[in-house]
Amino acid sequence: MADAERKLSNGKSRIDFQTDPSKYRHWKLTIDGDVATLLMDVDEKGALFEGYELKLNSYDLGVDIELADAIERLRFEHPQVKVILLRSGKPRVFCAGANIRMLAGASHAHKVNFCKFTNETRNGIEDASEASGLFTICVINGTAAGGGYELALAADHIMLIDDGSSAVSLPELPLLAVLPGTGGLTRVTDKRKVRRDRADVFCTTEEGIKGKRAVDWRLVDEVVPASKLEEAVGKRAREFAARSQRPAGAKGVALKPLARERSADAVEYSTISVEFERPSQLATITLRGPQAAPPASAEAMVEQGAEFWPLKLARELDDAILDIRANEFDVAAIVFKSSGDPAQVLAYDQFLDANKDHWLAREISGLWKRVLKRVDLTSRSLVALVEPGSCFAGTLAELVFASDRSYMLIGKRDGDNKPPATLALAAVNFGAYPMSNGLSRLASRFLADPADLERAKAAAGETLDAEAAERLGLVTFALDDIDWEGEIRVFLEERASFSADGLTGLEANLRFGGPETMESKIFARLTAWQNWIFQRPNAVGEEGALKRYGTGQKPAFDTRRV
Amino acid sequence: MADAERKLSNGKSRIDFQTDPSKYRHWKLTIDGDVATLLMDVDEKGALFEGYELKLNSYDLGVDIELADAIERLRFEHPQVKVILLRSGKPRVFCAGANIRMLAGASHAHKVNFCKFTNETRNGIEDASEASGLFTICVINGTAAGGGYELALAADHIMLIDDGSSAVSLPELPLLAVLPGTGGLTRVTDKRKVRRDRADVFCTTEEGIKGKRAVDWRLVDEVVPASKLEEAVGKRAREFAARSQRPAGAKGVALKPLARERSADAVEYSTISVEFERPSQLATITLRGPQAAPPASAEAMVEQGAEFWPLKLARELDDAILDIRANEFDVAAIVFKSSGDPAQVLAYDQFLDANKDHWLAREISGLWKRVLKRVDLTSRSLVALVEPGSCFAGTLAELVFASDRSYMLIGKRDGDNKPPATLALAAVNFGAYPMSNGLSRLASRFLADPADLERAKAAAGETLDAEAAERLGLVTFALDDIDWEGEIRVFLEERASFSADGLTGLEANLRFGGPETMESKIFARLTAWQNWIFQRPNAVGEEGALKRYGTGQKPAFDTRRV
Repeated sequence: MADAERKLSNGKSRIDFQTDPSKYRHWKLTIDGDVATLLMDVDEKGALFEGYELKLNSYDLGVDIELADAIERLRFEHPQVKVILLRSGKPRVFCAGANIRMLAGASHAHKVNFCKFTNETRNGIEDASEASGLFTICVINGTAAGGGYELALAADHIMLIDDGSSAVSLPELPLLAVLPGTGGLTRVTDKRKVRRDRADVFCTTEEGIKGKRAVDWRLVDEVVPASKLEEAVGKRAREFAARSQRPAGAKGVALKPLARERSADAVEYSTISVEFERPSQLATITLRGPQAAPPASAEAMVEQGAEFWPLKLARELDDAILDIRANEFDVAAIVFKSSGDPAQVLAYDQFLDANKDHWLAREISGLWKRVLKRVDLTSRSLVALVEPGSCFAGTLAELVFASDRSYMLIGKRDGDNKPPATLALAAVNFGAYPMSNGLSRLASRFLADPADLERAKAAAGETLDAEAAERLGLVTFALDDIDWEGEIRVFLEERASFSADGLTGLEANLRFGGPETMESKIFARLTAWQNWIFQRPNAVGEEGALKRYGTGQKPAFDTRRV
Repeated sequence: MADAERKLSNGKSRIDFQTDPSKYRHWKLTIDGDVATLLMDVDEKGALFEGYELKLNSYDLGVDIELADAIERLRFEHPQVKVILLRSGKPRVFCAGANIRMLAGASHAHKVNFCKFTNETRNGIEDASEASGLFTICVINGTAAGGGYELALAADHIMLIDDGSSAVSLPELPLLAVLPGTGGLTRVTDKRKVRRDRADVFCTTEEGIKGKRAVDWRLVDEVVPASKLEEAVGKRAREFAARSQRPAGAKGVALKPLARERSADAVEYSTISVEFERPSQLATITLRGPQAAPPASAEAMVEQGAEFWPLKLARELDDAILDIRANEFDVAAIVFKSSGDPAQVLAYDQFLDANKDHWLAREISGLWKRVLKRVDLTSRSLVALVEPGSCFAGTLAELVFASDRSYMLIGKRDGDNKPPATLALAAVNFGAYPMSNGLSRLASRFLADPADLERAKAAAGETLDAEAAERLGLVTFALDDIDWEGEIRVFLEERASFSADGLTGLEANLRFGGPETMESKIFARLTAWQNWIFQRPNAVGEEGALKRYGTGQKPAFDTRRV
């Protein structure tokens, strides 16, 4: 199911995004006071799929799942950590980038999803710095090639050992006829702000750039002789730690394994259910509101830890989305439903807001921001159904605004005693969860007229029925019970009948109106071009560079410029 | 040569971008005072290629070449025109969009270049409004489908006849499994600012949207009953004309046919030469500086008309770039050279600046802006060689900054009495010619440190030798005579050895650092996704929607979401 063309090396049928440090095969996480060291030491035999080995600290999705997990754990389990030292456990090589044999053998869908996840992970490293003051220093002790250098680019500070051979490089184009697609090109021009003609030289120079030129060209922040490396690293770590506001004495929250029960057509989590209707190409995710009022204090929230409802729900939703993305390619649309008491959902939002200076509240809010961005970037049609008994309020209402379309039922259902559906806005809907374009979902929605946004703001806290929500522009259609079933069935059938690729492209454009940021540029400009190239014979054809790499045979190129 | 897979219907081997109203087959341009009517009345039998007919005002590149020509002529030949009425000459149909059989049979390269040119033409319509006060009102008298509505979207004002059937639509996804890729999706969200979920409904509704809903959803500006149409159009035309600053009594400048002499491996224009070294996949464009000092007055400039050096050069360069794009797919790199007196080039820049309130000076400056943008968006490696005898100064220096790399020779050449190469900046390099990202090329170049831009500004007017230019970051490499030939040969050979597609993607990313605009979003996000889809079997495969359209057979889709 995961990837028709390939078998997972663990014998299972699905890619699992859940892990923990006790299971890591590729990373070693050690913590010394406020400094964590994340040592990349990829197990050659630990590839996710059969058929290739992870030599020279090259990576595949399995390696990146561990990295993403480690970053999340540092945020939640180790709130005292202020600096991550990203290092290699291999001599003379930092990281050789994405594994080429893996790429050469992967389906188009897996390649695209692999790049999306690694992009999200690198954005996560930057988000940890920006939103949480958890800084990353990358220490390059040898070659950082391709995805290896792209990983370094996500750090706040890049140190390169000055030994006459250690270098950074983006050799994707000359070696493989593809792009440095994990943010590399965009970070070179927009984050490191390398002059464009130098970037051109850099990206076409197979062996990369080392020493003083790497600093002069802004590719790294400093070069350090081997003999002085540890001293310099310690000094930088102390400098960055001094700038961090992360709480010195705080006790972390263990991210316990998620409770999941999988059956043929469903996954039951604690706070969400996922149901697959495979003949209709649908996955329905039902989110359940909290069972109890928020805890009495921030300390009580810490006590609840991973059981605290907003944290648990965010983690479970994230896992469900990733599972669908990587394992359920035939799902055309994800339908969001919810059940519970909207007042309780709002109470949790209020609780988090009241405790927004507490590190854990901040981390939970940040996690929601990232999970919602993951939803935005999921290439399936997203549909929200707001029905009686649902609890799309505050944070959960963001899923309505993240959806390509939303439908809300007017009034009660015949023979159903649930009160009519409501929608409720809260402060969190106006800035807490920016999309990758930097705007809140409501601001993105109401680009035409700021007055629409103001009207929505004025309605915050109100319990909006379907007609009020439609009037405010918060849902696409309010329908009564007579039309509901038929209209939605027709819509979902129609959706599944459209070209899957066409929908991906359509949604990738319509979801992100307005401004662009470095992050949105990565997912739009860079990723879209990479996806294009990932289909071109020059890269992926039988005579293409990805297929011929390492065979001794030169690739045969169609020389026509398009 | 134009398109290996297809024959031009005029029996020639190259697509020609030069035309004039006497040759138009698809448009009728009439002028009444300050209002021009541009009537689309596509000749079914006038297709550019063999094998399809242009029914229902559908278009191909040939139709768009005439449209682009008409817009340029209105700017230069009819400075008194303030409003363009864009209308259809066919009953009950405005425009059916890009011709589907043309798309179905076109090579990938032609499809991509066709979309690029049509995008540039629509941007040109918007630029005429913004930069020149030449407004466009689109009058839709029937169906405006797909590219037909995208054309309307380029207008300042869209009027839709309210007859119960006339509608606007973007049916590309449901009908053809491709995107409205000529700016449609981006203009819907970013220009018309249609709410994203409504945009989703609109773009998946084959029959489109008409009447009041089209206005409520911001898809058109007004609907007008047929009986009141002409009166309403007249009223709007007068309103827009009243806002325009275009000169009432000015005498236009005829855009005379370009003088071109084509031989097997060269094209000689009046102010430029193009040489093809086909075995090396190179085209060298040499720009020649002015032969004489600028005229004494604005009136004298009008008198020179199309012979005025900056105007002639811009038109010839534009034609040369378009010719290479559409007809020379095997050209991997365009090398820019120049010859002439830099002081004279700067004198023309000063002349235009001194007369910047004159309509013709403004139009010429605007034309240069658009031609330089066309260069930026040309998917060939761009290289500038600054050698003794060259005149890369002011406006011409922009080609150095538009290039992916530039090389400048230090000192004299052995046995050559030409003085060493120089580069000179002028006021025009700091804002007159913004790229599609809204920044000048120098501002894009110096994103890292505004001080670099300030240093360049301070050097404006100076004659910079190679070392000074390199120190200021204006060229990639300054080389002496010993290294010159070898380094450049190796570089150009290497460039031609890389994957053509990989280079396209690389350059599309590295050229546009920094901010994004609606225009850059169209060329990046939207176009890149469209190019991707233009390769997917769901669209272009034997069972894909483009191939099966009109056959009565349903397309067969791979349902996997990527």
